[in-house]
Amino acid sequence: VKNLLLVLLLGLAVPALAQSPEAKLAQLGLVLPPVAAASGSYVDVVRVGNLLFLSGKGPRQPNGAYVTGRLGADLTTAQGYEAARLTALVQLAVLKKELGDLSKVRRIVKVNGYVNSTDTFTEQPKVINGYSDLLIQVFGERGRHARTALGTNSLPLGMALEVEMVVEVE
Amino acid sequence: VKNLLLVLLLGLAVPALAQSPEAKLAQLGLVLPPVAAASGSYVDVVRVGNLLFLSGKGPRQPNGAYVTGRLGADLTTAQGYEAARLTALVQLAVLKKELGDLSKVRRIVKVNGYVNSTDTFTEQPKVINGYSDLLIQVFGERGRHARTALGTNSLPLGMALEVEMVVEVE
Amino acid sequence: VKNLLLVLLLGLAVPALAQSPEAKLAQLGLVLPPVAAASGSYVDVVRVGNLLFLSGKGPRQPNGAYVTGRLGADLTTAQGYEAARLTALVQLAVLKKELGDLSKVRRIVKVNGYVNSTDTFTEQPKVINGYSDLLIQVFGERGRHARTALGTNSLPLGMALEVEMVVEVE
Repeated sequence: VKNLLLVLLLGLAVPALAQSPEAKLAQLGLVLPPVAAASGSYVDVVRVGNLLFLSGKGPRQPNGAYVTGRLGADLTTAQGYEAARLTALVQLAVLKKELGDLSKVRRIVKVNGYVNSTDTFTEQPKVINGYSDLLIQVFGERGRHARTALGTNSLPLGMALEVEMVVEVE
Repeated sequence: VKNLLLVLLLGLAVPALAQSPEAKLAQLGLVLPPVAAASGSYVDVVRVGNLLFLSGKGPRQPNGAYVTGRLGADLTTAQGYEAARLTALVQLAVLKKELGDLSKVRRIVKVNGYVNSTDTFTEQPKVINGYSDLLIQVFGERGRHARTALGTNSLPLGMALEVEMVVEVE
Repeated sequence: VKNLLLVLLLGLAVPALAQSPEAKLAQLGLVLPPVAAASGSYVDVVRVGNLLFLSGKGPRQPNGAYVTGRLGADLTTAQGYEAARLTALVQLAVLKKELGDLSKVRRIVKVNGYVNSTDTFTEQPKVINGYSDLLIQVFGERGRHARTALGTNSLPLGMALEVEMVVEVE
């Protein structure tokens, strides 16, 4: 009976352990990119109380180049979704650098996604889902956030999108 | 003298009671719309401490259709004002669902309003006033908020505007 | 020996005293503008706990007129930088009015800068640096903030840019 109980407990405990955000990233085959040196004029993140305010970041590829172009002309919604997923990885790298351990994330609070758009492109939510979905994959329920997605006619360096967020930590 | 005092006290107390946000809405002849089912990728509101962060919402009409179009071309400023007022009702419905009782709102802290605009439309504040004014009508002094109003060249589904906010609650 | 110690201590203390934000502004030859009367529909700042949420403001000149126009067409990046610096002065005036003493600022937490841009202008960060750099000059390390800079096709009154921020205070 003792052994059965142990097996049952392990059966409950192991999946929970496997769900550390870092383990989840590894399971998805994802590697966090290096965090680029911050500009002299601002920083990547500021903590106030148990809230982190993260600077806006774009879809920086592993080679350092950004995904550029406008949705509705240069990029499809599916390409935008992938770029948003890439941007989430960039912000996860910022969080990892700040916290050391992604398990310290208590809740993704708010995400604002700005999509480089032609005047007639209206699928910004489908693009930013690439960002939101990865956060939920990595953090589970703690990854569910409030969100605003909107279009803009121009972004720094011609980036396809830019995303900022507020995160609650332990 | 006792009765006079009672009358005076009631005279002070009754208007205060009548000013519950729900009573104020009824007095204005306004009905909160149903809250549309949230997307799988994000939620309508996240609470952290005594702050609520609300997702961006648009001018959803009682029939479920959005007011669409661009200010400066398809809609007048007055029509934009009405659409902003409609958006405030949507967010009030989100607050009501979250809190049960709108009296739990201690302060509307911050409102960000994004207006679907032609390149030459510059009356975004007059449009977003439709949102702000309704909050002040419903919450009184507690409804006075900090605000940013700006234009954008494209919004999800072609909505005329989108508004998000931060609210302090008890 | 006592006198030497006193001189050393003064040598340490005087620069620290000289670094009050107000002294720093004077040293830079900058004067805070009067704060324009707030609109009826919103307020310049709302405090919640030890956070201040400031409304979006634009580059209001000492004569009351705004710097207007679009980056990429009507204004150079250098002119945009100066307009952003002017906007920082406007927000510092709001902070001064709210706090009485700028030394009560514990940290500039988050800055969002929206730049009136043509579709092809991509130097929004260089423009908003005018805002960020002044905050760092005035507040030192406490002025280093998280930030988002992006373009927009239209702003209220045709302003060249609009900036809002979140500030932690004592």
